Amino acid sequence: MSADDRIQELGIKVPLIPKPGGNYVHAVRTGSLLYLSGKGPLDSATGKVGADVSVEQAYEHARTAGLNQLSVMRNELSSLDEVVRVVKVLGMVNATPDFEQQPAVINGCSDLFIEMFAAAGHHARTAVGMGSLPGGITAEIECIVEVA
Amino acid sequence: MSADDRIQELGIKVPLIPKPGGNYVHAVRTGSLLYLSGKGPLDSATGKVGADVSVEQAYEHARTAGLNQLSVMRNELSSLDEVVRVVKVLGMVNATPDFEQQPAVINGCSDLFIEMFAAAGHHARTAVGMGSLPGGITAEIECIVEVA
Amino acid sequence: MSADDRIQELGIKVPLIPKPGGNYVHAVRTGSLLYLSGKGPLDSATGKVGADVSVEQAYEHARTAGLNQLSVMRNELSSLDEVVRVVKVLGMVNATPDFEQQPAVINGCSDLFIEMFAAAGHHARTAVGMGSLPGGITAEIECIVEVA
Repeated sequence: MSADDRIQELGIKVPLIPKPGGNYVHAVRTGSLLYLSGKGPLDSATGKVGADVSVEQAYEHARTAGLNQLSVMRNELSSLDEVVRVVKVLGMVNATPDFEQQPAVINGCSDLFIEMFAAAGHHARTAVGMGSLPGGITAEIECIVEVA
Repeated sequence: MSADDRIQELGIKVPLIPKPGGNYVHAVRTGSLLYLSGKGPLDSATGKVGADVSVEQAYEHARTAGLNQLSVMRNELSSLDEVVRVVKVLGMVNATPDFEQQPAVINGCSDLFIEMFAAAGHHARTAVGMGSLPGGITAEIECIVEVA
Repeated sequence: MSADDRIQELGIKVPLIPKPGGNYVHAVRTGSLLYLSGKGPLDSATGKVGADVSVEQAYEHARTAGLNQLSVMRNELSSLDEVVRVVKVLGMVNATPDFEQQPAVINGCSDLFIEMFAAAGHHARTAVGMGSLPGGITAEIECIVEVA
């Protein structure tokens, strides 16, 4: 099944992405790699994970950030089927200084990519805690994908 | 107009960069990509953005960090005109835990790259808040550029 | 001397790496680049650098994280001699907000890579302080290597 079909079968709604909140672009392609700018979840998904926000809530936010990246990919490519491999994910959590469960949060995005792309969705990853994130969002995802 | 001409027209002074402050090099080229090590502003540009340092001050610091990256590029390449595209910028702000305006700070670097390289300066970007930065600097820029 | 011989001569013991602690893989190759997931030191190497943990201790932890990356490389490639160049290191320190010596900590990994690979071990690098790291580890290393 193609990625474009799978997104329909899974009933995944890919959001429209807003314009970049700074002087940059959503993605740049160089050779066979597409570098995607960091993307967060919805504006309402703010707070410190480990204090105001639970791991379960932040998991959903990381999934939403991943959906925003799928939206960028679909805008940049003719089809999500052009994605050959999700190469690398940098998952950033806006957490308290003693938070330890960044991997469980970023699984929200990783699980989505593997649902979507199956074997091609398995990626190298770093999941870490930031001091702060733009607009106070709970999580942000940056990624690199290999494209056809 | 070439990038080398533009830097003169804009009256931009590219600083001499000091030796790396650790066991690493300023840049590594692999294929058509040049990976540049993280660079900060001047030594005197220290403090926490959102507390000791304003967004406007940190914007200038991010611009200075960008100038330092231009200096690295010029040292590595025969000319800044060898830069085909600024692919990716990682902008890191040494901020308080509740700081939310990282994109406005990192625009200091992004605006510079677009002044310098025009369309080739438009880059994918992540702008985030770090827990701490080397020497207490306010901002640090890492980037990847495609070269001829 | 080959990297495989050097690791023996130096008496370096490369640890067995545990399974990823999340829905990701240790490494993804695309073209001639191998992207390695972030790796930390041993589970017991936890705490905040600048408070509970000294720079000297954290240097050793960064070295152990680097050994874990060597282990990943050896598992992914037929031999460490397949490493053409260590391109980029992202060194992340779990530090107090006023910590300033991230480069001295991450040298633990950089020194190891240069011992191992000599000229091919010289890499671009960013060494920064995170708000928090998974499991409370003191340091984490992510890297990109060019392979044969």
